Amino acid sequence: MNFEHGGDIYSFAKKLDCNISNIVDLSSNINFIKPNLDIDFNSLNISSYPNYNSLKDAISNNYNISIDNFELYNGASVAIYSLLKRLKYQDIVLYAPIYLEYKKFASLNGYNIKYIDRFNMINEDIPFQSLVVFVNPSTPDGAFYNIDTLINRWIEREATIIIDESFLDFTPYKSAIEYINRYDKIYIIKSMTKFYSSAGIRVGLVISNIENIIDINRDEPLWKISEFDSKYLEYALKDKKFANISRDITQKNRELLIKILKKYREIEKIYPSTTNYILIKLRYINAIEFQNRLIPYKIMVRDCWNFDFLDNNFIRVAIKDIESINSLENALNNILSLRE
Amino acid sequence: MNFEHGGDIYSFAKKLDCNISNIVDLSSNINFIKPNLDIDFNSLNISSYPNYNSLKDAISNNYNISIDNFELYNGASVAIYSLLKRLKYQDIVLYAPIYLEYKKFASLNGYNIKYIDRFNMINEDIPFQSLVVFVNPSTPDGAFYNIDTLINRWIEREATIIIDESFLDFTPYKSAIEYINRYDKIYIIKSMTKFYSSAGIRVGLVISNIENIIDINRDEPLWKISEFDSKYLEYALKDKKFANISRDITQKNRELLIKILKKYREIEKIYPSTTNYILIKLRYINAIEFQNRLIPYKIMVRDCWNFDFLDNNFIRVAIKDIESINSLENALNNILSLRE
Repeated sequence: MNFEHGGDIYSFAKKLDCNISNIVDLSSNINFIKPNLDIDFNSLNISSYPNYNSLKDAISNNYNISIDNFELYNGASVAIYSLLKRLKYQDIVLYAPIYLEYKKFASLNGYNIKYIDRFNMINEDIPFQSLVVFVNPSTPDGAFYNIDTLINRWIEREATIIIDESFLDFTPYKSAIEYINRYDKIYIIKSMTKFYSSAGIRVGLVISNIENIIDINRDEPLWKISEFDSKYLEYALKDKKFANISRDITQKNRELLIKILKKYREIEKIYPSTTNYILIKLRYINAIEFQNRLIPYKIMVRDCWNFDFLDNNFIRVAIKDIESINSLENALNNILSLRE
Repeated sequence: MNFEHGGDIYSFAKKLDCNISNIVDLSSNINFIKPNLDIDFNSLNISSYPNYNSLKDAISNNYNISIDNFELYNGASVAIYSLLKRLKYQDIVLYAPIYLEYKKFASLNGYNIKYIDRFNMINEDIPFQSLVVFVNPSTPDGAFYNIDTLINRWIEREATIIIDESFLDFTPYKSAIEYINRYDKIYIIKSMTKFYSSAGIRVGLVISNIENIIDINRDEPLWKISEFDSKYLEYALKDKKFANISRDITQKNRELLIKILKKYREIEKIYPSTTNYILIKLRYINAIEFQNRLIPYKIMVRDCWNFDFLDNNFIRVAIKDIESINSLENALNNILSLRE
């Protein structure tokens, strides 16, 4: 069974002929901790056109940016799509492995794609005046890079820069937002659905300087985001304990999961992660076989064969609650062998 | 007080320093009747990525079209935006007056815009191989046109055709959907938020033949629509009495409103409407003054000065419940004069 994207629990449950509530989904990297929401969605006013002012205020406060410094999109993938369509460059540089969306939308928009292997060749030169995309923390491994040096080099090359910080909220590290007022061609993309545990709601941001945001806004539809989603995120951002709790529990569970994964001979390498997922390299068994052996346990993990610079020996495992980690450990004890 | 779009009750309430629940909003043309929804939005699974299969099935059943014949968008304005961007023609023909979105997105995409005055010159010739947009029923007046003759003429001119049927569900008239399998360059756009009483949820459709939909789908993001919105519409479509009730009550209230509007000297003309709004032409008083006199009564109506071929003598009034019609009548009795 193969899934181009993680998280398709509906198809997985259908194939197994079981309820989706019985699936242990470690394939999608959505925060398993949920914000406390003091809101009744059934009583929302959805007859009127949405007004995103209070959502914008909440985002502005949370990330300490002006409301003039970002544009809302119905999901980060739409933000990526729009930005790549708008920034019509000849060359795009993708620091890979990287989300498939960048590759897809870059191809569709006729970019000449250059991949830089960030595991082995991160300092490789980039074409002059190209569009650079860096995901930080990265996916599918979760490494956080201190990219100040890289950014300065990109600026020297007069690049236009996209930093995707969709998973930054899981970490204690600083954002590249500070660069938006230092360099006029830098954009930060943020998915709000990963950390705020809501793949089903569609909100993403593009953050940049005021001029770029005005320019983007000029040809955008007025209402892109659902009133439901707008209120969900606004109220999620009001839960002031949520961010710290998420970071603490994710870190604790990550340490536990790493400890477990280290036990098995078939797991050759565990990549360092700062987020809520872990990339592992397999040996003696490939990713498809690994996934297949997990099916009887109703556990989904992400096969990473379709990421550049990775092959069918890589699996991404999401960090969820203790119960799911225990289920995975139980399964792995049966399908893998312990190190001597 | 001037509003480029109807329905900005938040700004209106703020200026009047009153609660939005006290505003009588006759400026936005959202169905005031709401579907019965047998769903608890608070218990929706929003952690997983949405899967729109059951929504697509519901739409397919409701409009008697195959799921391969439409693409979902987060709102009709996004659908319009995407379609005009994609169908890069030199000339666009807008049968006006027409929604401002068409004008805006046509301008932004560098189209050479030709307006045809559908009130006076509907049979005017169109440029060869142009893109034609016709809204049926039309806005801001609500006339339904039997456009078979027009469509055949457009086909002769090898036009690409967009028919916007966002308000068709308010009427008993037939859709142009039947043309999608007869002519390969026709697209139907439908906003699902007007009739289904949900400006706050963002769902719109582009309906066309399978090849066009596959082509559109190729470069669209995977998840554009909120899980909340998807479920809202899916359950709204399950309310099988809703459509008939909406049409019946809208018709009854429209007749009542027309009877009232006919009483006043300042109302020179009432345009025939098949939908949930009425266009009126004023005399002795302009639209701004008309709006201003309604402010003390907390009533909002739509000023139509920014529609092509209209000027500051036109007002659009939405058809809502009896109570709001009574409020309007009471206000008009005070601010206008009765015919002799």
